[in-house]
Amino acid sequence: MSALPITQLFDPSDPVFRAHEGGKLGVHATSDLRDAADLSLLYTPGVAQVSRAIAADPTLAAVYTSRRNTVAVVSDGTAVLGLGDVGPLAAMPVMEGKAVLFKHFADVDAVPVCMQTGTVEEIVDAVVRIAPTYGGINLEDISAPRCFEIERRLQARLDIPVFHDDQHGTAIVALAALLGAVRVVDKDLAALTVVVSGAGAAGVAVSRILLAAGVEDVVVVDSRGVLGPDRVDLVPHKQQLRDLTNPRGVTGSIGDALCAADVLIGVSGGTVAERDLLRMAPRAIIFALANPDPEVHPVVAARFAEVVATGRSDFPNQINNVLAFPGIFRGALDSGARRITEEMKLAAAYAIADLVDAPTADRIVPSVFDDRVAPAVAAAVAGQVTGRVAGHVVGPVTASSC
Amino acid sequence: MSALPITQLFDPSDPVFRAHEGGKLGVHATSDLRDAADLSLLYTPGVAQVSRAIAADPTLAAVYTSRRNTVAVVSDGTAVLGLGDVGPLAAMPVMEGKAVLFKHFADVDAVPVCMQTGTVEEIVDAVVRIAPTYGGINLEDISAPRCFEIERRLQARLDIPVFHDDQHGTAIVALAALLGAVRVVDKDLAALTVVVSGAGAAGVAVSRILLAAGVEDVVVVDSRGVLGPDRVDLVPHKQQLRDLTNPRGVTGSIGDALCAADVLIGVSGGTVAERDLLRMAPRAIIFALANPDPEVHPVVAARFAEVVATGRSDFPNQINNVLAFPGIFRGALDSGARRITEEMKLAAAYAIADLVDAPTADRIVPSVFDDRVAPAVAAAVAGQVTGRVAGHVVGPVTASSC
Repeated sequence: MSALPITQLFDPSDPVFRAHEGGKLGVHATSDLRDAADLSLLYTPGVAQVSRAIAADPTLAAVYTSRRNTVAVVSDGTAVLGLGDVGPLAAMPVMEGKAVLFKHFADVDAVPVCMQTGTVEEIVDAVVRIAPTYGGINLEDISAPRCFEIERRLQARLDIPVFHDDQHGTAIVALAALLGAVRVVDKDLAALTVVVSGAGAAGVAVSRILLAAGVEDVVVVDSRGVLGPDRVDLVPHKQQLRDLTNPRGVTGSIGDALCAADVLIGVSGGTVAERDLLRMAPRAIIFALANPDPEVHPVVAARFAEVVATGRSDFPNQINNVLAFPGIFRGALDSGARRITEEMKLAAAYAIADLVDAPTADRIVPSVFDDRVAPAVAAAVAGQVTGRVAGHVVGPVTASSC
Repeated sequence: MSALPITQLFDPSDPVFRAHEGGKLGVHATSDLRDAADLSLLYTPGVAQVSRAIAADPTLAAVYTSRRNTVAVVSDGTAVLGLGDVGPLAAMPVMEGKAVLFKHFADVDAVPVCMQTGTVEEIVDAVVRIAPTYGGINLEDISAPRCFEIERRLQARLDIPVFHDDQHGTAIVALAALLGAVRVVDKDLAALTVVVSGAGAAGVAVSRILLAAGVEDVVVVDSRGVLGPDRVDLVPHKQQLRDLTNPRGVTGSIGDALCAADVLIGVSGGTVAERDLLRMAPRAIIFALANPDPEVHPVVAARFAEVVATGRSDFPNQINNVLAFPGIFRGALDSGARRITEEMKLAAAYAIADLVDAPTADRIVPSVFDDRVAPAVAAAVAGQVTGRVAGHVVGPVTASSC
């Protein structure tokens, strides 16, 4: 994080600070409390009837408590945006913002839960302990590789959906965008050569969803180079990722990986040199998703690729997780899903992509303000739970579906 | 809890269940999200400025996050109303109801945190871990004696107020009511003989606040009789309570304690026999606060006492915690209090009592719907923090103040 003095970081007259005054979230009662009769319905003595019924049949909690529509946005503040480990207090504005988006786009009641960091075990124990309050857990801005183990252990212990948005939200919207982009450049998804730059939370999840969607040739690069057969320095999650990817056994630098590559997906926060981009295949696709500074500036990227996307709202093709997470949880809550499966994630990506009838280089994904998105994603996710399949039948995308 | 079959516990057409459909709480954004400009103020990239500033100066979290107005209503569901250990899911409607009251009476944004139960250490660790999210912790419906240690350890580890409402809320409103009642019966608070029936969370706190307010002769009774010098069966918190109370060394049954007693405060859920009530002093005061079934029915109690109060809304003199907790937290949040001190609790009780100009046997406390109550309590609590003293100067009440 920045070492600037506070005077350079904080200007109470700045519109951003003014918009944050008093926080961005409030709580309200869903029905009126006017008199003693209301009080005895909503609180004692009436509430005892509801508590007694739920004690006898816990499934009633899904109908008669706010749990049915409430998602905890959980962070320990160890990997907040591009700022790094700023801690739970500084994570609050981000988690509140996320909650605002949940409400706005999908009428999900999300509440921040910003916790002091600790071991994987400690974080997992705390979330499991408070989990009865919520219908789902959205993990956010937790540093890698802890985030992988935290998500895995939480999902193993809980019967509500656990979804690490930095991984899966990013993966879903990246796949959705890629589905649009391949139509523009007229290439076959399964035959693509894809380079993923970044082997953190997003890099792992993007690589995995591409494989699940049928892409065969994915090469991952971290700050030291290609995750190839020669790498003996890899931590466990990177070893695993290397073993799943890189079928050609590429080694070397990102320049070696980009040789004749069709797609570069940057989720690293680093930069990619122009001399390396020059080596990409004709009709290339570049997604430079680091925020707020893309790995390649979109104007530069356009010199090397036919389709360019970033996470920024001030350039075409904004790839933003908000296309995915509100609808994902809306669908999961509505269908009583106990977890977010790979099939749901794929279905969500296809649902987003399907909303763009005729993709062009400047429009491969719907706008984040397209109000069809969250309902379409929710329906696609719920369809995977209930057996109703909305839109695409989920399965690897082959040439015939391009 | 009840062993009735669910069919007798659950009737979806009952107005209570209808009032609970979908839960009682919602979350909302406090400002509009209309377009990309709003999105970049409330979320990325703008939010990063706020996070960075809070990381540099954590005190800014009190201004720019929802923490400033948010209280966690924490329960493990081990002592819910009169139902006992019904667990966290069944506790949810009660905690939501509490949150509705917080909002309605004092504009505090309260959120339920219902947790799986565990050891004192486990509960404390979990609450400490999530505490950065909140401006205060309201503990609720946690079984005794665990609740004492949980509250004590939490307050020792946190710099935000921790308040176990079953203890202190009850104590504050009981004292407020007693301040009104002694004016009706024209007795001196300090000279009263008070019997507290119940040595659980409420009994301990009621006894302590009475001592703090200057009552000298408090005798506590549990299900086995008077907490007197002869009792060798006492758990630590009852030993401690015995050592603080009972200056005359009373022993025996509740009947022995009630001999010539001026006041009976029931917070036990048991019953008190008429033959014992007969022994009370003239112009007696009976508060039978167990809910929904008072220790003595108010019609019966009126045969033995000049002033009678219960927790029920269908009889005069409803003594309900809602007179205290919304204003307590409003005052604490507004003044940046780090804990709820004994002085704040006394000030709150005096503030409530002061709202009744001329108490009568049927009106010793203000109505729970009296909208002067929460602001008065908040001002009194905040006055103890800031040095401004609203209303009474806090100190033991002596004859001159009656």
